[in-house]
Amino acid sequence: MKKEYVLGIDLGGTNIRGAAVGAKGNIWEILILPTETVRGRKQVVGNLSRLIKALRRKITPKENNLLGVGIGAAGGILQREGIISQSPNISPLDGFRLREHLEKEFRLPVFLENDANCGALGEKWVGAGRGVNDLGLITLGTGVGGGLILGGKLLRGIDGTAGEIGHTTINSEGPECLCGSRGCLEVYSSATAIVRRLKEEVSRGEKTQLVGRQGRRLDRITSKDIHQAALAGDRLSRRLFREMGRYLGIGIANLINILNLEMVVIGGGVSGAWELFMPTMKKEVRKRAFRVPARRVKILKSRLGVNAGLLGAASLVWQGAVE
Amino acid sequence: MKKEYVLGIDLGGTNIRGAAVGAKGNIWEILILPTETVRGRKQVVGNLSRLIKALRRKITPKENNLLGVGIGAAGGILQREGIISQSPNISPLDGFRLREHLEKEFRLPVFLENDANCGALGEKWVGAGRGVNDLGLITLGTGVGGGLILGGKLLRGIDGTAGEIGHTTINSEGPECLCGSRGCLEVYSSATAIVRRLKEEVSRGEKTQLVGRQGRRLDRITSKDIHQAALAGDRLSRRLFREMGRYLGIGIANLINILNLEMVVIGGGVSGAWELFMPTMKKEVRKRAFRVPARRVKILKSRLGVNAGLLGAASLVWQGAVE
Repeated sequence: MKKEYVLGIDLGGTNIRGAAVGAKGNIWEILILPTETVRGRKQVVGNLSRLIKALRRKITPKENNLLGVGIGAAGGILQREGIISQSPNISPLDGFRLREHLEKEFRLPVFLENDANCGALGEKWVGAGRGVNDLGLITLGTGVGGGLILGGKLLRGIDGTAGEIGHTTINSEGPECLCGSRGCLEVYSSATAIVRRLKEEVSRGEKTQLVGRQGRRLDRITSKDIHQAALAGDRLSRRLFREMGRYLGIGIANLINILNLEMVVIGGGVSGAWELFMPTMKKEVRKRAFRVPARRVKILKSRLGVNAGLLGAASLVWQGAVE
Repeated sequence: MKKEYVLGIDLGGTNIRGAAVGAKGNIWEILILPTETVRGRKQVVGNLSRLIKALRRKITPKENNLLGVGIGAAGGILQREGIISQSPNISPLDGFRLREHLEKEFRLPVFLENDANCGALGEKWVGAGRGVNDLGLITLGTGVGGGLILGGKLLRGIDGTAGEIGHTTINSEGPECLCGSRGCLEVYSSATAIVRRLKEEVSRGEKTQLVGRQGRRLDRITSKDIHQAALAGDRLSRRLFREMGRYLGIGIANLINILNLEMVVIGGGVSGAWELFMPTMKKEVRKRAFRVPARRVKILKSRLGVNAGLLGAASLVWQGAVE
């Protein structure tokens, strides 16, 4: 009998990350291709096809049976229609019937879902949230994304747009956000926010190892540089992570006062700086949330890291294949 | 054959409001007794018993069959245990096994639930949210309460504390809240908040019909007085309702970005001033929330008013009786 597997794909603005995934969430093979958004829709869809074909070739077809493809994409997804409705990061695919296209090409079931939702599914399936039925995922990257599992199921909301924790106001008078609002969690706790805050503080005259004779030019500094500097003892950098943790704590307190979750998982690139922001984050949750939900909630770092999304995407196929 | 009915009770800090309710949410009879919290647990529980007995007597037992009693109480409820765990407004009952006590006394099934949760259930059953499966209720009273229906079911969360929309931070640097946090929705959009804001503005020298020669003493003014003054054209009062609506809009925007709800119902005493705060509330939702959830959500005034809670409490018995 052939062994069954699925493909889980994380379709981002920069890279397409795909993996062949077994029934228990074990990764057989990983491949990464550039998305090449600037080269337009045909190229992006072509890269996606090439990735699927390459993975299929690697997993000997004579011995293994591919059940379907799950894709987690950055942006607004019309899940039932299989369309990326709006994605600032993969804009060439806006409005494109991606699922239909791939189902025709590969004659396989294809599932399309928002990437943060996939991350939440992945963490529940084989990550930090295994066996947890009420779980929130917050991803700290260029932006701040979110996914929610309630009663063991992904919460999509009536149009499939639920989970946008990054775009909830935590400071009504705060800085403008790309979404058009102001004072969103994203303007305080994303990688972008940390870089912006460093620049603000430097322009106010604050000192940091990062800038100046031994340092870089201010406009080239990334959140990873600030993370490194903080680890090396840079006081301003350390302060910025504490500050970012405090705001993240406010967002988490809001979430658990509304939903009384069992667990909140923090993922995305910035979660690598966990030790730097965790203490102020947890302190703020205790300060802001009610006693019972604050005591209940476990707040953990993502266990799957960059693979959370593709594993969650793969789980969609396994679920669909079972139903 | 006897006609079946249930009792729905709204147990508040000031009054106990009870009704005999038919299978379709029709109210047969309403009774109100004072809670008499200051006279201690025995008196409060005694009043509750008296209300139940009085309603039972009014509904001729020979012709009608009482199936059970549903109670919505202000405060934290351990729903499975039938205990009011923590209620600032009915503190004599804190930790009391209310359900067990009443089930023994009346030999009937008793259901205990948070009052705002009951309000949400009531509005879904026979109010503004009939047939709606994803609905939030926000009650604007002394405090700001909340209840959530997701996928047609009450969202309780893992400990039963979910729905505390009033205690989500919308301004991280805002005024202190009774809950120990600061800048909660409650400090901007409750009846208490409107009164506090009036006092602040008057002490800053703002003028209002409400204070002075023809007006009342500042320390006796209620949110209803401010509502009346606003209707009579008082500019400061009108401005305060616009301001309160703006903050309420932020809270709603947060809720729908997280949950992508079909409907949000606004109840509680302050919702009587609907026309005064609705325009700024809706404007702020459009400004802050994503396009899709903002267009989707219907924001409506409660249809059941003060009876939402007791009707929702009654629905718990009907659901339980069916199961």
